[in-house]
Amino acid sequence: MDDSFKTHINKFVKMSDDEFAKIISYFKVQHFKKKENLLNEGQVCKASYFVTKGILRKFFINGKGVEQTTEFAIENWWMTETFSFINQTPSEFFIQAVENTEVLVLHRDAHDKMLDAHPLMEKYFRCVYQRTYAAAQRRNKFRYEHSREELYHFFRKVQPEFLQRVPQYLVASYLGFTPEYLSEIRRKSIS
Amino acid sequence: MDDSFKTHINKFVKMSDDEFAKIISYFKVQHFKKKENLLNEGQVCKASYFVTKGILRKFFINGKGVEQTTEFAIENWWMTETFSFINQTPSEFFIQAVENTEVLVLHRDAHDKMLDAHPLMEKYFRCVYQRTYAAAQRRNKFRYEHSREELYHFFRKVQPEFLQRVPQYLVASYLGFTPEYLSEIRRKSIS
Repeated sequence: MDDSFKTHINKFVKMSDDEFAKIISYFKVQHFKKKENLLNEGQVCKASYFVTKGILRKFFINGKGVEQTTEFAIENWWMTETFSFINQTPSEFFIQAVENTEVLVLHRDAHDKMLDAHPLMEKYFRCVYQRTYAAAQRRNKFRYEHSREELYHFFRKVQPEFLQRVPQYLVASYLGFTPEYLSEIRRKSIS
Repeated sequence: MDDSFKTHINKFVKMSDDEFAKIISYFKVQHFKKKENLLNEGQVCKASYFVTKGILRKFFINGKGVEQTTEFAIENWWMTETFSFINQTPSEFFIQAVENTEVLVLHRDAHDKMLDAHPLMEKYFRCVYQRTYAAAQRRNKFRYEHSREELYHFFRKVQPEFLQRVPQYLVASYLGFTPEYLSEIRRKSIS
Protein backbone atom coordinates (compact mmCIF):
# COMPACT_ATOMS: atom_id res chain seq x y z
CA MET A 1 0.00 0.00 0.00
CA ASP A 2 1.29 3.45 -0.88
CA ASP A 3 0.82 6.50 1.36
CA SER A 4 -2.12 8.01 -0.55
CA PHE A 5 -4.47 7.60 2.42
CA LYS A 6 -2.05 9.34 4.77
CA THR A 7 -1.71 12.19 2.28
CA HIS A 8 -5.50 12.41 2.04
CA ILE A 9 -5.94 12.59 5.82
CA ASN A 10 -3.27 15.28 6.07
CA LYS A 11 -5.23 17.47 3.67
CA PHE A 12 -7.85 17.91 6.39
CA VAL A 13 -6.17 17.28 9.77
CA LYS A 14 -2.66 17.31 11.17
CA MET A 15 -1.75 13.83 12.35
CA SER A 16 1.48 12.40 13.77
CA ASP A 17 3.04 9.26 12.25
CA ASP A 18 2.30 7.43 15.53
CA GLU A 19 -1.39 8.27 15.40
CA PHE A 20 -1.60 7.34 11.72
CA ALA A 21 -0.07 3.94 12.53
CA LYS A 22 -2.88 3.39 15.04
CA ILE A 23 -5.54 4.63 12.62
CA ILE A 24 -4.44 2.36 9.79
CA SER A 25 -4.69 -0.69 12.06
CA TYR A 26 -8.50 -0.32 11.89
CA PHE A 27 -8.41 -0.87 8.11
CA LYS A 28 -7.90 -3.94 5.95
CA VAL A 29 -6.49 -3.97 2.43
CA GLN A 30 -8.69 -5.88 0.02
CA HIS A 31 -8.57 -6.57 -3.73
CA PHE A 32 -11.53 -6.96 -6.05
CA LYS A 33 -11.48 -8.22 -9.61
CA LYS A 34 -13.07 -6.28 -12.47
CA LYS A 35 -16.89 -6.64 -12.28
CA GLU A 36 -16.74 -8.22 -8.81
CA ASN A 37 -19.44 -6.94 -6.44
CA LEU A 38 -18.42 -5.48 -3.07
CA LEU A 39 -22.08 -5.11 -2.11
CA ASN A 40 -25.34 -6.50 -3.49
CA GLU A 41 -28.81 -4.98 -3.33
CA GLY A 42 -30.63 -6.31 -0.26
CA GLN A 43 -27.41 -6.89 1.73
CA VAL A 44 -26.56 -4.69 4.70
CA CYS A 45 -23.62 -2.44 3.83
CA LYS A 46 -21.06 -3.29 6.49
CA ALA A 47 -18.10 -1.23 5.30
CA SER A 48 -16.79 2.01 3.84
CA TYR A 49 -14.18 1.77 1.07
CA PHE A 50 -11.28 4.11 0.32
CA VAL A 51 -10.00 3.47 -3.22
CA THR A 52 -6.19 3.21 -3.42
CA LYS A 53 -6.07 1.75 -6.95
CA GLY A 54 -8.84 1.27 -9.50
CA ILE A 55 -12.44 2.40 -9.83
CA LEU A 56 -15.69 1.51 -8.07
CA ARG A 57 -19.21 2.30 -9.18
CA LYS A 58 -22.57 2.34 -7.44
CA PHE A 59 -25.69 1.30 -9.34
CA PHE A 60 -29.21 0.02 -8.95
CA ILE A 61 -31.43 -2.01 -11.26
CA ASN A 62 -34.33 0.11 -12.44
CA GLY A 63 -37.94 -0.90 -13.15
CA LYS A 64 -36.99 -1.94 -16.69
CA GLY A 65 -34.29 -4.30 -15.39
CA VAL A 66 -31.52 -1.98 -16.57
CA GLU A 67 -28.47 -1.07 -14.46
CA GLN A 68 -28.46 2.65 -13.59
CA THR A 69 -25.04 3.90 -12.45
CA THR A 70 -25.31 6.80 -9.99
CA GLU A 71 -21.77 7.29 -8.74
CA PHE A 72 -18.11 6.47 -9.44
CA ALA A 73 -15.12 6.52 -7.09
CA ILE A 74 -11.55 6.64 -8.37
CA GLU A 75 -8.32 6.79 -6.35
CA ASN A 76 -8.55 8.84 -3.12
CA TRP A 77 -12.35 8.76 -3.03
CA TRP A 78 -14.54 7.08 -0.48
CA MET A 79 -17.41 4.83 -1.51
CA THR A 80 -20.15 3.33 0.61
CA GLU A 81 -23.95 3.01 0.58
CA THR A 82 -24.27 5.69 3.23
CA PHE A 83 -27.89 5.09 4.26
CA SER A 84 -27.42 1.34 4.66
CA PHE A 85 -24.03 1.85 6.37
CA ILE A 86 -25.46 4.27 8.97
CA ASN A 87 -28.72 2.47 9.67
CA GLN A 88 -27.57 -1.10 8.99
CA THR A 89 -30.63 -1.66 6.79
CA PRO A 90 -30.66 -3.56 3.45
CA SER A 91 -28.94 -1.67 0.64
CA GLU A 92 -30.88 -0.37 -2.37
CA PHE A 93 -27.68 -0.28 -4.42
CA PHE A 94 -24.88 -2.50 -5.69
CA ILE A 95 -21.20 -1.51 -5.41
CA GLN A 96 -18.96 -3.04 -8.07
CA ALA A 97 -15.31 -2.88 -9.22
CA VAL A 98 -15.07 -1.30 -12.71
CA GLU A 99 -11.47 -2.52 -13.08
CA ASN A 100 -9.20 -4.59 -10.80
CA THR A 101 -9.34 -2.48 -7.67
CA GLU A 102 -7.51 -2.16 -4.34
CA VAL A 103 -9.38 -0.63 -1.41
CA LEU A 104 -8.88 0.12 2.25
CA VAL A 105 -11.87 -1.43 4.00
CA LEU A 106 -13.25 0.17 7.16
CA HIS A 107 -15.89 -2.10 8.69
CA ARG A 108 -18.75 -0.49 10.58
CA ASP A 109 -17.53 -1.83 13.97
CA ALA A 110 -13.98 -0.64 13.29
CA HIS A 111 -15.37 2.73 12.12
CA ASP A 112 -17.19 3.25 15.44
CA LYS A 113 -14.25 2.07 17.57
CA MET A 114 -11.78 4.20 15.62
CA LEU A 115 -13.92 7.35 16.02
CA ASP A 116 -14.25 6.75 19.77
CA ALA A 117 -10.49 6.32 20.15
CA HIS A 118 -9.41 9.02 17.66
CA PRO A 119 -11.68 12.09 17.74
CA LEU A 120 -9.40 13.71 15.13
CA MET A 121 -11.00 11.32 12.62
CA GLU A 122 -14.39 12.90 13.39
CA LYS A 123 -12.97 16.14 11.98
CA TYR A 124 -11.55 14.26 8.99
CA PHE A 125 -14.89 12.61 8.17
CA ARG A 126 -16.84 15.82 8.87
CA CYS A 127 -14.65 17.54 6.24
CA VAL A 128 -14.96 14.62 3.77
CA TYR A 129 -18.77 14.47 4.05
CA GLN A 130 -19.10 18.27 3.94
CA ARG A 131 -17.14 18.34 0.67
CA THR A 132 -18.96 15.33 -0.74
CA TYR A 133 -22.29 17.01 -0.06
CA ALA A 134 -21.08 20.31 -1.55
CA ALA A 135 -20.01 18.47 -4.72
CA ALA A 136 -23.40 16.69 -4.91
CA GLN A 137 -25.20 20.05 -4.67
CA ARG A 138 -23.15 21.47 -7.53
CA ARG A 139 -23.73 18.37 -9.71
CA ASN A 140 -27.43 18.68 -8.97
CA LYS A 141 -27.45 22.33 -10.12
CA PHE A 142 -25.48 21.39 -13.23
CA ARG A 143 -28.07 18.72 -14.10
CA TYR A 144 -30.90 21.24 -13.80
CA GLU A 145 -29.13 23.73 -16.06
CA HIS A 146 -27.56 21.60 -18.72
CA SER A 147 -28.53 18.86 -21.11
CA ARG A 148 -27.01 15.42 -20.73
CA GLU A 149 -24.96 16.08 -23.85
CA GLU A 150 -23.47 19.19 -22.22
CA LEU A 151 -22.77 17.10 -19.11
CA TYR A 152 -20.76 14.69 -21.25
CA HIS A 153 -18.67 17.55 -22.71
CA PHE A 154 -18.14 19.01 -19.23
CA PHE A 155 -16.95 15.57 -18.08
CA ARG A 156 -14.62 15.31 -21.04
CA LYS A 157 -13.09 18.67 -20.15
CA VAL A 158 -12.59 18.28 -16.39
CA GLN A 159 -12.13 14.49 -16.11
CA PRO A 160 -10.49 13.32 -19.38
CA GLU A 161 -8.52 10.53 -17.68
CA PHE A 162 -11.68 9.23 -16.03
CA LEU A 163 -13.53 9.04 -19.36
CA GLN A 164 -10.66 7.08 -20.89
CA ARG A 165 -10.60 4.54 -18.07
CA VAL A 166 -14.34 3.87 -17.69
CA PRO A 167 -15.99 1.67 -20.35
CA GLN A 168 -18.29 3.71 -22.57
CA TYR A 169 -21.42 1.71 -21.71
CA LEU A 170 -20.96 2.72 -18.04
CA VAL A 171 -20.45 6.39 -18.95
CA ALA A 172 -23.68 6.09 -20.97
CA SER A 173 -25.47 4.48 -18.00
CA TYR A 174 -24.29 7.26 -15.67
CA LEU A 175 -25.42 10.01 -18.05
CA GLY A 176 -28.70 8.27 -18.82
CA PHE A 177 -27.86 7.70 -22.52
CA THR A 178 -28.17 4.59 -24.59
CA PRO A 179 -24.67 3.42 -25.64
CA GLU A 180 -25.69 4.19 -29.26
CA TYR A 181 -26.54 7.81 -28.44
CA LEU A 182 -23.20 8.25 -26.63
CA SER A 183 -21.37 6.89 -29.71
CA GLU A 184 -23.20 9.45 -31.82
CA ILE A 185 -22.20 12.34 -29.53
CA ARG A 186 -18.61 11.13 -29.50
CA ARG A 187 -18.54 10.91 -33.31
CA LYS A 188 -19.95 14.43 -33.58
CA SER A 189 -17.40 15.84 -31.13
CA ILE A 190 -14.45 14.22 -32.96
CA SER A 191 -15.48 15.29 -36.46
CA MET B 1 -35.78 30.35 21.58
CA ASP B 2 -37.07 26.90 22.48
CA ASP B 3 -34.80 23.93 23.14
CA SER B 4 -35.18 22.32 19.69
CA PHE B 5 -31.49 22.77 18.88
CA LYS B 6 -30.43 21.12 22.15
CA THR B 7 -32.77 18.22 21.41
CA HIS B 8 -31.29 17.94 17.91
CA ILE B 9 -27.71 17.84 19.21
CA ASN B 10 -28.63 15.20 21.79
CA LYS B 11 -29.87 12.92 19.01
CA PHE B 12 -26.26 12.51 17.89
CA VAL B 13 -23.98 13.25 20.87
CA LYS B 14 -24.29 13.31 24.63
CA MET B 15 -23.69 16.82 25.88
CA SER B 16 -23.87 18.35 29.37
CA ASP B 17 -25.97 21.46 30.03
CA ASP B 18 -22.74 23.35 30.77
CA GLU B 19 -21.20 22.47 27.42
CA PHE B 20 -24.43 23.30 25.59
CA ALA B 21 -24.43 26.75 27.24
CA LYS B 22 -20.94 27.33 25.83
CA ILE B 23 -21.92 25.98 22.38
CA ILE B 24 -24.98 28.18 22.06
CA SER B 25 -22.89 31.28 22.78
CA TYR B 26 -21.33 30.87 19.29
CA PHE B 27 -24.77 31.31 17.68
CA LYS B 28 -26.98 34.34 17.10
CA VAL B 29 -30.76 34.30 16.80
CA GLN B 30 -31.96 36.12 13.70
CA HIS B 31 -35.38 36.71 12.14
CA PHE B 32 -36.15 37.00 8.44
CA LYS B 33 -39.38 38.17 6.89
CA LYS B 34 -41.20 36.14 4.24
CA LYS B 35 -39.33 36.45 0.88
CA GLU B 36 -36.31 38.11 2.53
CA ASN B 37 -32.97 36.84 1.19
CA LEU B 38 -30.38 35.49 3.65
CA LEU B 39 -27.89 35.08 0.80
CA ASN B 40 -27.69 36.39 -2.76
CA GLU B 41 -25.99 34.82 -5.76
CA GLY B 42 -22.45 36.20 -6.05
CA GLN B 43 -22.11 36.88 -2.32
CA VAL B 44 -19.79 34.77 -0.18
CA CYS B 45 -21.85 32.53 2.12
CA LYS B 46 -20.61 33.50 5.58
CA ALA B 47 -22.97 31.45 7.75
CA SER B 48 -24.81 28.21 8.34
CA TYR B 49 -28.46 28.41 9.46
CA PHE B 50 -30.38 26.09 11.76
CA VAL B 51 -34.14 26.67 11.33
CA THR B 52 -36.02 26.98 14.65
CA LYS B 53 -39.25 28.36 13.13
CA GLY B 54 -40.31 28.73 9.52
CA ILE B 55 -38.99 27.54 6.17
CA LEU B 56 -35.98 28.41 4.03
CA ARG B 57 -35.38 27.54 0.40
CA LYS B 58 -32.34 27.49 -1.84
CA PHE B 59 -32.66 28.44 -5.50
CA PHE B 60 -30.75 29.68 -8.51
CA ILE B 61 -31.86 31.63 -11.56
CA ASN B 62 -31.59 29.44 -14.66
CA GLY B 63 -30.65 30.37 -18.22
CA LYS B 64 -34.25 31.34 -18.96
CA GLY B 65 -34.32 33.78 -16.04
CA VAL B 66 -36.59 31.47 -14.02
CA GLU B 67 -36.04 30.65 -10.33
CA GLN B 68 -35.22 26.97 -9.85
CA THR B 69 -35.70 25.78 -6.24
CA THR B 70 -33.33 22.94 -5.32
CA GLU B 71 -33.79 22.53 -1.56
CA PHE B 72 -36.05 23.39 1.37
CA ALA B 73 -35.27 23.44 5.10
CA ILE B 74 -38.02 23.33 7.73
CA GLU B 75 -37.64 23.29 11.52
CA ASN B 76 -34.61 21.33 12.81
CA TRP B 77 -32.84 21.35 9.44
CA TRP B 78 -29.61 23.06 8.57
CA MET B 79 -29.29 25.24 5.49
CA THR B 80 -26.19 26.75 3.94
CA GLU B 81 -24.52 27.01 0.52
CA THR B 82 -21.96 24.40 1.49
CA PHE B 83 -19.44 24.96 -1.32
CA SER B 84 -19.35 28.73 -0.80
CA PHE B 85 -19.32 28.30 3.00
CA ILE B 86 -16.32 25.93 2.93
CA ASN B 87 -14.27 27.71 0.29
CA GLN B 88 -15.45 31.27 0.92
CA THR B 89 -16.06 31.74 -2.81
CA PRO B 90 -19.07 33.56 -4.38
CA SER B 91 -22.32 31.62 -4.05
CA GLU B 92 -24.13 30.22 -7.09
CA PHE B 93 -27.39 30.12 -5.12
CA PHE B 94 -29.80 32.35 -3.23
CA ILE B 95 -31.18 31.42 0.21
CA GLN B 96 -34.60 32.92 0.99
CA ALA B 97 -37.24 32.77 3.74
CA VAL B 98 -40.45 31.12 2.45
CA GLU B 99 -42.41 32.40 5.48
CA ASN B 100 -41.40 34.55 8.48
CA THR B 101 -38.50 32.52 9.79
CA GLU B 102 -36.32 32.31 12.92
CA VAL B 103 -32.86 30.83 12.58
CA LEU B 104 -29.80 30.16 14.68
CA VAL B 105 -26.91 31.71 12.75
CA LEU B 106 -23.44 30.17 12.94
CA HIS B 107 -20.93 32.44 11.23
CA ARG B 108 -17.95 30.83 9.54
CA ASP B 109 -15.47 32.29 12.11
CA ALA B 110 -17.64 31.14 15.02
CA HIS B 111 -18.01 27.71 13.32
CA ASP B 112 -14.23 27.25 13.19
CA LYS B 113 -13.64 28.53 16.73
CA MET B 114 -16.46 26.39 18.13
CA LEU B 115 -15.11 23.23 16.47
CA ASP B 116 -11.61 23.91 17.83
CA ALA B 117 -12.94 24.41 21.37
CA HIS B 118 -15.61 21.66 21.29
CA PRO B 119 -14.48 18.56 19.37
CA LEU B 120 -17.81 16.91 20.29
CA MET B 121 -19.38 19.21 17.68
CA GLU B 122 -17.16 17.60 15.03
CA LYS B 123 -19.00 14.35 15.76
CA TYR B 124 -22.34 16.18 15.64
CA PHE B 125 -21.61 17.74 12.25
CA ARG B 126 -20.07 14.51 10.91
CA CYS B 127 -23.38 12.77 11.72
CA VAL B 128 -25.48 15.62 10.27
CA TYR B 129 -23.53 15.72 6.98
CA GLN B 130 -23.44 11.92 6.73
CA ARG B 131 -27.24 11.79 7.05
CA THR B 132 -27.73 14.75 4.72
CA TYR B 133 -25.61 13.02 2.08
CA ALA B 134 -27.45 9.71 2.57
CA ALA B 135 -30.79 11.50 2.08
CA ALA B 136 -29.47 13.22 -1.08
CA GLN B 137 -28.41 9.84 -2.51
CA ARG B 138 -31.86 8.38 -1.91
CA ARG B 139 -33.60 11.41 -3.46
CA ASN B 140 -31.29 11.06 -6.45
CA LYS B 141 -32.25 7.38 -6.89
CA PHE B 142 -35.92 8.28 -6.54
CA ARG B 143 -35.59 10.88 -9.30
CA TYR B 144 -34.02 8.34 -11.64
CA GLU B 145 -36.79 5.82 -11.01
CA HIS B 146 -39.93 7.91 -10.85
CA SER B 147 -41.67 10.57 -12.87
CA ARG B 148 -42.05 14.04 -11.42
CA GLU B 149 -45.75 13.33 -10.96
CA GLU B 150 -44.90 10.29 -8.82
CA LEU B 151 -42.45 12.47 -6.86
CA TYR B 152 -45.32 14.85 -6.07
CA HIS B 153 -47.51 12.00 -4.78
CA PHE B 154 -44.60 10.64 -2.73
CA PHE B 155 -44.16 14.12 -1.24
CA ARG B 156 -47.87 14.33 -0.49
CA LYS B 157 -47.70 11.02 1.36
CA VAL B 158 -44.57 11.52 3.47
CA GLN B 159 -44.57 15.32 3.93
CA PRO B 160 -48.25 16.44 3.90
CA GLU B 161 -47.64 19.30 6.37
CA PHE B 162 -44.77 20.58 4.24
CA LEU B 163 -46.93 20.65 1.09
CA GLN B 164 -49.61 22.62 2.93
CA ARG B 165 -47.15 25.23 4.18
CA VAL B 166 -45.15 25.85 1.00
CA PRO B 167 -46.82 27.96 -1.72
CA GLN B 168 -47.77 25.82 -4.73
CA TYR B 169 -45.62 27.80 -7.18
CA LEU B 170 -42.54 26.89 -5.11
CA VAL B 171 -43.52 23.22 -4.98
CA ALA B 172 -43.89 23.41 -8.78
CA SER B 173 -40.45 25.06 -9.08
CA TYR B 174 -38.86 22.36 -6.92
CA LEU B 175 -40.46 19.54 -8.94
CA GLY B 176 -39.69 21.22 -12.27
CA PHE B 177 -43.39 21.70 -13.17
CA THR B 178 -45.15 24.76 -14.44
CA PRO B 179 -47.67 25.95 -11.81
CA GLU B 180 -50.45 25.08 -14.32
CA TYR B 181 -49.28 21.47 -14.62
CA LEU B 182 -49.14 21.12 -10.84
CA SER B 183 -52.74 22.43 -10.59
CA GLU B 184 -53.77 19.80 -13.11
CA ILE B 185 -52.12 16.98 -11.13
CA ARG B 186 -53.73 18.25 -7.92
CA ARG B 187 -57.16 18.37 -9.57
CA LYS B 188 -56.71 14.82 -10.87
CA SER B 189 -55.64 13.51 -7.45
CA ILE B 190 -58.62 15.13 -5.69
CA SER B 191 -61.24 13.96 -8.19
